[in-house]
Amino acid sequence: MTTDSDIIYGLHAVREALEAGTVNRLLIQKDLRGKNVDDIKSLAQKQAVKVDWAEKTTLSNLTEAGVHQGFVAYVAAFAYEKLESLLSNLTGRETATILILDELSDPHNLGAIARTADATGVDALIIPKHRSVGITPAAVKASTGAFEHVPVVRVINLAQTLETLKTQGFWIFGTDMTGTPYTTWNSTGKIALIIGSEGRGISQGLKKQVDEMITLPMVGHVQSLNASVAASILMYKILENKK
Amino acid sequence: MTTDSDIIYGLHAVREALEAGTVNRLLIQKDLRGKNVDDIKSLAQKQAVKVDWAEKTTLSNLTEAGVHQGFVAYVAAFAYEKLESLLSNLTGRETATILILDELSDPHNLGAIARTADATGVDALIIPKHRSVGITPAAVKASTGAFEHVPVVRVINLAQTLETLKTQGFWIFGTDMTGTPYTTWNSTGKIALIIGSEGRGISQGLKKQVDEMITLPMVGHVQSLNASVAASILMYKILENKK
Repeated sequence: MTTDSDIIYGLHAVREALEAGTVNRLLIQKDLRGKNVDDIKSLAQKQAVKVDWAEKTTLSNLTEAGVHQGFVAYVAAFAYEKLESLLSNLTGRETATILILDELSDPHNLGAIARTADATGVDALIIPKHRSVGITPAAVKASTGAFEHVPVVRVINLAQTLETLKTQGFWIFGTDMTGTPYTTWNSTGKIALIIGSEGRGISQGLKKQVDEMITLPMVGHVQSLNASVAASILMYKILENKK
Repeated sequence: MTTDSDIIYGLHAVREALEAGTVNRLLIQKDLRGKNVDDIKSLAQKQAVKVDWAEKTTLSNLTEAGVHQGFVAYVAAFAYEKLESLLSNLTGRETATILILDELSDPHNLGAIARTADATGVDALIIPKHRSVGITPAAVKASTGAFEHVPVVRVINLAQTLETLKTQGFWIFGTDMTGTPYTTWNSTGKIALIIGSEGRGISQGLKKQVDEMITLPMVGHVQSLNASVAASILMYKILENKK
């Protein structure tokens, strides 16, 4: 395996990647038979993807004992940007917008956020390497091409990254229920906005690093908005404030 | 089958409904065996849902020859509001907001829209009966409870419904690339906003009925936003303009 190739596995993920056309090579478990195998094989054929048969133990080794269900695919690796090169690109800029996605789990949300990020001129997305959805085929599909234009940085430690951003003159914003109304938000200058995960919002650890919390009013009964919706409303407010 | 019960079918939809806890009774094809049957049976058991076995032909009849894959579930029907009662509830009101969802296909988008609709005090959603996603378990899940608070009207003919709304004093808005910037949109009074489908936007037929097109600026490369994102940014703008 070369460094510019990722592995994905499991029936659903492999089917999705085949449909998205991102698979370079496919491995199917030797003794597997049935409708799923036939479906995946014919999808691979349509996409002109080479299929090889492998022992179950080979697949288990490749996936580090993941639940591969007999299907493993090699896909082109996403070209993540390095934090250092992002920051060096932004050096000297008086305004910049970075979105920090704190352990998002839904690829559709990640894709929709990238789509709005491109539409509103956000400079980069930062995601953590662990406990976060990556640039999966579903995320790429939902982004409608935005990942080709919006740099994504993957970091080991978000807290440390926020510290680095602060030293570079970034102001850190988060969202909660009792902050500054988003309509009076001063979002100009160099800003980093943290979007919390779908389940539990912004991590406790990161909350301490936030300079100002921003609030989207809610007049009904639900307790929160969809993560990509909340992120997008704020990205449009940032764009509005630029004018 | 009573009128307050809907039928859903297919492995994926039935599993989703079981996980969401909306299934009243489950039918599985008699001669079906394998992992999927075992999975669905154990899910049903966990949720205390009665399982009956039925002939393939029975299932085909029940689903009007749909692709049931051997799984059919009876679920509690969603209590749609009638257009007449919605309009009578809004009689005498000087401001009202209705969202018209023009053949949306993604249940996550429908759910996210309902969620923002509740958060921003939208009075109702209107969806067409045909060629549109309904209130499926996935939509309910994505709505985080919003469908209990936001009335949904299902109509046969959207064009006719728009005519009715016009006679009731509603101003009809749509979205496209060359309309009034959303930041200068006069969204006060009684308004109906049409949200186009994920694939092709607002139908040609409905476009003619729109009084004014509204535009969300896009400074990047993507050609459009996710439907629930676009709808939500505009719902928040309406809420902002109310103040």
